[in-house]
Amino acid sequence: MRSIKIGVLGLGNVGAGVLRILREHSQTLEQRVSARIEVKRVLVRDLSRAREIETPEGLLTTDPSEVLEDPEIAVVVELIGGTTTAKQFVERALAAGKHVVTANKALLAEHGDALFQRAQECGRELLFEGAVAGGIPVLRAIRHGLASDRVQRLCGIVNGTSNYVLDKMTREGLAYAEAVAQAQAAGYAEADPSLDVGGVDAAHKLALLASLSFGKRVTLDSIFVEGIESIRAYDLAVAKDLGYVVRSLAIASRGADDRLQLRVHPVLLPHDHVLAGVHGAYNAVLVESEALGRSMYYGQGAGMMPTGVAVTSDIMDVARTILANTAGQASTAEDTAPPQVTRMASVVGASPDTLQHANYLCVHVAHVSGVLGRVATVLGAHGVSIAKMRQDHPEGASHARMVIVTEVVSEAAMAAAITELERGDDCVEATVRIRFMEPEG
Amino acid sequence: MRSIKIGVLGLGNVGAGVLRILREHSQTLEQRVSARIEVKRVLVRDLSRAREIETPEGLLTTDPSEVLEDPEIAVVVELIGGTTTAKQFVERALAAGKHVVTANKALLAEHGDALFQRAQECGRELLFEGAVAGGIPVLRAIRHGLASDRVQRLCGIVNGTSNYVLDKMTREGLAYAEAVAQAQAAGYAEADPSLDVGGVDAAHKLALLASLSFGKRVTLDSIFVEGIESIRAYDLAVAKDLGYVVRSLAIASRGADDRLQLRVHPVLLPHDHVLAGVHGAYNAVLVESEALGRSMYYGQGAGMMPTGVAVTSDIMDVARTILANTAGQASTAEDTAPPQVTRMASVVGASPDTLQHANYLCVHVAHVSGVLGRVATVLGAHGVSIAKMRQDHPEGASHARMVIVTEVVSEAAMAAAITELERGDDCVEATVRIRFMEPEG
Repeated sequence: MRSIKIGVLGLGNVGAGVLRILREHSQTLEQRVSARIEVKRVLVRDLSRAREIETPEGLLTTDPSEVLEDPEIAVVVELIGGTTTAKQFVERALAAGKHVVTANKALLAEHGDALFQRAQECGRELLFEGAVAGGIPVLRAIRHGLASDRVQRLCGIVNGTSNYVLDKMTREGLAYAEAVAQAQAAGYAEADPSLDVGGVDAAHKLALLASLSFGKRVTLDSIFVEGIESIRAYDLAVAKDLGYVVRSLAIASRGADDRLQLRVHPVLLPHDHVLAGVHGAYNAVLVESEALGRSMYYGQGAGMMPTGVAVTSDIMDVARTILANTAGQASTAEDTAPPQVTRMASVVGASPDTLQHANYLCVHVAHVSGVLGRVATVLGAHGVSIAKMRQDHPEGASHARMVIVTEVVSEAAMAAAITELERGDDCVEATVRIRFMEPEG
Repeated sequence: MRSIKIGVLGLGNVGAGVLRILREHSQTLEQRVSARIEVKRVLVRDLSRAREIETPEGLLTTDPSEVLEDPEIAVVVELIGGTTTAKQFVERALAAGKHVVTANKALLAEHGDALFQRAQECGRELLFEGAVAGGIPVLRAIRHGLASDRVQRLCGIVNGTSNYVLDKMTREGLAYAEAVAQAQAAGYAEADPSLDVGGVDAAHKLALLASLSFGKRVTLDSIFVEGIESIRAYDLAVAKDLGYVVRSLAIASRGADDRLQLRVHPVLLPHDHVLAGVHGAYNAVLVESEALGRSMYYGQGAGMMPTGVAVTSDIMDVARTILANTAGQASTAEDTAPPQVTRMASVVGASPDTLQHANYLCVHVAHVSGVLGRVATVLGAHGVSIAKMRQDHPEGASHARMVIVTEVVSEAAMAAAITELERGDDCVEATVRIRFMEPEG
């Protein structure tokens, strides 16, 4: 049986998980891949440091070239994190003819364009299952499915922190700040959670998912992003009364002219929607494609072992590709480039202004006569029809609170109406606005 | 680039779907597999029959040996259905050294043991993604994951008919017979739906899923099976009041001593459980494994294109295995046997008597004094504690209806209590009993 040698950069949590999986499951991995997968060298910063896993004499090295330029090593697994050194190492590995597996989302977010380009030029694979929704084999399903199907739409819960916070607020009636504090205490949120709750982390993942699914290069600036920071327990309680739950979703859809619409924002989902059952820090991605129709992939978005399984899957995939190419005749770089790379073309994200939604609004206005009339008139003037409305007073406050559910209306009209509403002196607090899921979603 | 030639048996719906996918996506398939996949011959019964898809001159044949014994054909795709001829053809194909892909659940249910054994002896793969939950790549996820993980528990909605019927009854308050009639009208149920609503179809699929997941040979007679026929709209309405929905689940779990517990029966799920969001004829499988934790795969369980995609995935997988083995040195039949076959061992299904559940009971008794006392006393005598109880009268009936939610109790105690209850003269109708999902599920 043939042996495929890999080199690992970094031996933190995920690295130790990968080594453990490769060791404990070596026999079944061999059978599955039809080759022995052998870790030849692991790059660490400090040889003397205590490790989560025992390693044989001579496996560890502090010299990058012993991994990156070893001619026997066919696959380099990048797990050092960060973006500067990691980028250099990945480029050196590709230049030396190695396939690369990484779980480094930040690296791909910042340098993905250049690195995928480089991998294509070198005719090597650059796989990253562990970088999006950790333990969920969604990239594999898309890549595998892509070859015989055509994705129309993706819709995912890809940020565990935001989902944890919204779920806590919904289930326990916690205030936003309190739910964030609990997420931090539980290890689901960073000390500065703004990249997560602000939607930027989800946008990074959406860019990777959409690039792969639609074969188009998606950059962060083509994604409309709105966080969950302005949502209050009150909004979630009203949503529940209406039969909805709120989830922060990352959505990519093929619009007219094959243009992509890309966005991350909170969405009101019917309580019996398949994504409404995703609680805590779990992730899920719902895919709609021509042949398969709707399919969904659900699981843990992060963690040492889930990410370790994802990285191991990528290693297995690369190993099979290596074996297949060795068997093929005259395979060139062109032939072996994965489809997502060769099919890439630049994409112009459609402006969110072209989208249409029903909306939940919570408007806070001074309790003066005629105020309901003004609100209704402003909405009407912008073509925003009201489907449902109710008015009350927040506990202990003297102003009025109006909850309005609008009919389906364009983003542009809704935004203009809210701007005009908030220009009025009688508007005492920022309006909360949450979009409903489109009927087809 | 190398070419891998396949032969197809049968050109019905799924066959036409597979041919269409292979044709329309030939370029991306080539890139993904690193080989050209070429359909060399398709076996049909009648050359003159009109087809859903145009085929080139000479592709179709009525002579099985032109597919089964053509030395150029490396993969045979069995899509003729039935179990007798299909079995002979699959055996001939394996004997001739071909890998086999099938979507024929009935074939595997009836002859799976013999066929997997045969495939192992021949050192060939026998893949069947299309046979379980059509469009959901769950077998692939399990096979891929198995190599680096260990499944502890599976829990799936794998019969679209039962799910459609229960969902209709829940959402629209339809009676059972009415919901079945609608399922038949919508093409989701056969004229005789008993295999579906009775749970036997789900048990067949569970046997395949569990064999693959646990590496043990699972036969139908080790699976406890209970259908949905006795459930009424009333039970579902009460469940909803309690915050639950009812789904027919196929469950396999690793118990003490590595013994498997295998069962198909209706289950009360909390309304926000991830499987509660599975509506209509959709399927989903929730997997719990050591490294990944909980993951779920959701999609259409049947249909021409979803099944076509599943079959195509298997073809791609086999093609990659062929290429990998060609590249490997001295690969023997032993080496190439897929893990699920080599790891098989006979399994003794644990008796359902060892299981423990909370239960929903709906007991119908004559409206006579002392009847509640008798019911409560019988339950108590068998160690069944009552968590909730309510009594009313079915519309237009003179007898009393008691809904009882029990605490967690053994199967044996619950069954004995129900038997004794129903022995009483005051018991006027069969007792409806539905198990709650275990807390860890």
